[in-house]
Amino acid sequence: MGDKLTGNVVVGQSGGPTCVINQSLIGVVRECSKYPQMNKVYGALHGVKGILGEDFTDLTKEDIKNLEIVANTPSSGLGSVRMKPKEEDCVRMFEIFKAHNVRYFFYIGGNDTAETADIVNNVARQRDYELRVFHIPKTIDNDLLVTDHCPGFGSAAKFVACAVMGDNLDNRSLPGIKINVVMGRHAGFLTAAAILAKRYEDDGPHLIYVPEAVFKMDKFVDDVDKVYQKYGRAVICVSEGVHDKDGNPIFTTGEKDSHGNVQLSGSGALGDYLAAEIKSKLKVKRVRADTFGYLQRCFPGVVSEVDAEEARVVGEKAVQLAVGANIDGSVIIRRTGGKSYKAEFDRTDLKNVAKKTKSLDAKYISKEENNITEEFIDYVKPLAGKLPEIGRLHIHKIAKILNK
Amino acid sequence: MGDKLTGNVVVGQSGGPTCVINQSLIGVVRECSKYPQMNKVYGALHGVKGILGEDFTDLTKEDIKNLEIVANTPSSGLGSVRMKPKEEDCVRMFEIFKAHNVRYFFYIGGNDTAETADIVNNVARQRDYELRVFHIPKTIDNDLLVTDHCPGFGSAAKFVACAVMGDNLDNRSLPGIKINVVMGRHAGFLTAAAILAKRYEDDGPHLIYVPEAVFKMDKFVDDVDKVYQKYGRAVICVSEGVHDKDGNPIFTTGEKDSHGNVQLSGSGALGDYLAAEIKSKLKVKRVRADTFGYLQRCFPGVVSEVDAEEARVVGEKAVQLAVGANIDGSVIIRRTGGKSYKAEFDRTDLKNVAKKTKSLDAKYISKEENNITEEFIDYVKPLAGKLPEIGRLHIHKIAKILNK
Repeated sequence: MGDKLTGNVVVGQSGGPTCVINQSLIGVVRECSKYPQMNKVYGALHGVKGILGEDFTDLTKEDIKNLEIVANTPSSGLGSVRMKPKEEDCVRMFEIFKAHNVRYFFYIGGNDTAETADIVNNVARQRDYELRVFHIPKTIDNDLLVTDHCPGFGSAAKFVACAVMGDNLDNRSLPGIKINVVMGRHAGFLTAAAILAKRYEDDGPHLIYVPEAVFKMDKFVDDVDKVYQKYGRAVICVSEGVHDKDGNPIFTTGEKDSHGNVQLSGSGALGDYLAAEIKSKLKVKRVRADTFGYLQRCFPGVVSEVDAEEARVVGEKAVQLAVGANIDGSVIIRRTGGKSYKAEFDRTDLKNVAKKTKSLDAKYISKEENNITEEFIDYVKPLAGKLPEIGRLHIHKIAKILNK
Repeated sequence: MGDKLTGNVVVGQSGGPTCVINQSLIGVVRECSKYPQMNKVYGALHGVKGILGEDFTDLTKEDIKNLEIVANTPSSGLGSVRMKPKEEDCVRMFEIFKAHNVRYFFYIGGNDTAETADIVNNVARQRDYELRVFHIPKTIDNDLLVTDHCPGFGSAAKFVACAVMGDNLDNRSLPGIKINVVMGRHAGFLTAAAILAKRYEDDGPHLIYVPEAVFKMDKFVDDVDKVYQKYGRAVICVSEGVHDKDGNPIFTTGEKDSHGNVQLSGSGALGDYLAAEIKSKLKVKRVRADTFGYLQRCFPGVVSEVDAEEARVVGEKAVQLAVGANIDGSVIIRRTGGKSYKAEFDRTDLKNVAKKTKSLDAKYISKEENNITEEFIDYVKPLAGKLPEIGRLHIHKIAKILNK
């Protein structure tokens, strides 16, 4: 197979959007413009749905100024989709690619997206059609295999850290018990990132619960009680995916999505339930719950610089790999350098990223399974980037006169 | 009464914190340092609770560098309180002021705070004790009388605008019906600020419901249906305080706070209830609700520049008024200038601000009572400050080949 494979390019975005997913898109578009063998770059509207419907936009007609504004705009500029195509859909996608002389396919998304790319890739191979297929990683859950971390996670981690930082200050000012529910069905990375909110010893989050540990209600109530006794307040972060020993969610609305997953996001049910439990068992009056919800993934302006930059590079890298001697793959980020954070970019086979997901390593979870370790702080800090400076007044007590 | 009244200063913070309430605090502290007749500046920890317990910190011992970091830190640096002191508490506060030779009292907060200041002021007058009492406005609800707007509101408005901006992009990428519940028990200013998220004609928020209008469930479902039919999606913002024609909240957890108010914040109940109604009546599958909760008032880094600056100035102005020929008052902001926003600062009597609150003017609410007018955009835009730039790809459709 030649290195100067000539044809059109299709790029699409899939799954839940992130703050930096358009960086990857624009990375692909701008990098493609450097290679004459890549003719037109077609943007598939709403991922595989757009491919199947031939809903393509000609991205080569965009001016650079607008592309750069879109790069800095959160959420999938092409539109996204939560559809997992069937085998026959993948065959149809291949036929559409062939009809449009598409030779390069870049698909930005999570592990389901990598799987779709892998299937389309196999269809093309079986039919002896030379197609270069690359998966470009994106997910706020940070749950892809092989790569050190996923573009999109750093900015979401920054949002969660800032949100908990603010919430801790709020709670310190008006003390009570506060529960924050963070996104993450199976992986606790994003909830764990809340630990970055801590500046002073008595700062929240005081407790963090992730789906990688079994959630026991009695232990939870006991943990909260201990913190409340000690500090007169408590800030707690809980993954939406916490579950009992049998893997059942602690509380849900009962609704299921198209993948058969129970709906967790877009509802305050879990937080309200946990608050009610604490209220009734600890007899504390001021117990509140917030569910961070969709704000976590697309909040404009709360973006990690490192994350934005890496999201751009993974897009560019996919194009470079495709014009090189590579047929397919998923772009991965490898952490290099010691104390100071550095990253390099490489590829792995699509099958290594498809289907399966990664969980928070046991070393990142405290022995009591109600907090996050220093090791995780070292891991996540460079990814979330610069956080706001938080200060406190020094307390110089004045001697009492009437209340002596 | 002399203009060189010599003695100590007490400053306190009360009510729900904001992103810029410490700007007002530091404004007071730094301005006081200019006047030799103001000896020490005592910070009351947790407002009137700290005064009654003589829990004061000597703010004159703080270095400027730390004060400026605190100024930029959200939430009440001195701690806050939701306590409305009784008449006898106000007498006790006066006695404590006298014992500590306090001659200046600055209290940062909402209308309850102004009322407390007014009562203490009257006690001092009755006892012929020369005390200068100033209320410094703060509230994300923007519901104080006389002043054009309240410090704290602009930054909260920016947060809500950014949150809805991101949510609209998210919803555009993965279409469905999305309900966002925004803080505001009686005043709809903050919910109305969501209108700033709109950039393009088809952008959300498509519907906005404020407590100044009666919420009718049938009309609501009908409104949402119309938007959904038109755009294939809908982003809706609803004040937590929406109520029926008898003033009853649409849905609550039933819990009441110390003022006898039904708990609205810190629970996802209203959003979940509205989502369930839409789901069952419109038979739409993807209906989600987020309740912005406490994130709205203390999110570090999402601050309106104008708001931060004005919060500083109202603190300074209170001190200037107190050393001038003024005995008491509440600082107000007056909007001057025509097209380009300008503000000047003045005083009004405490009683003009105490107790009562302001609502969204009828001219700001659309005729159908499900949206916000252009006039409100003119009002709120300069207060929220600079918002993130949002871009869209231009769509240049590629001709279909197989799906013709």
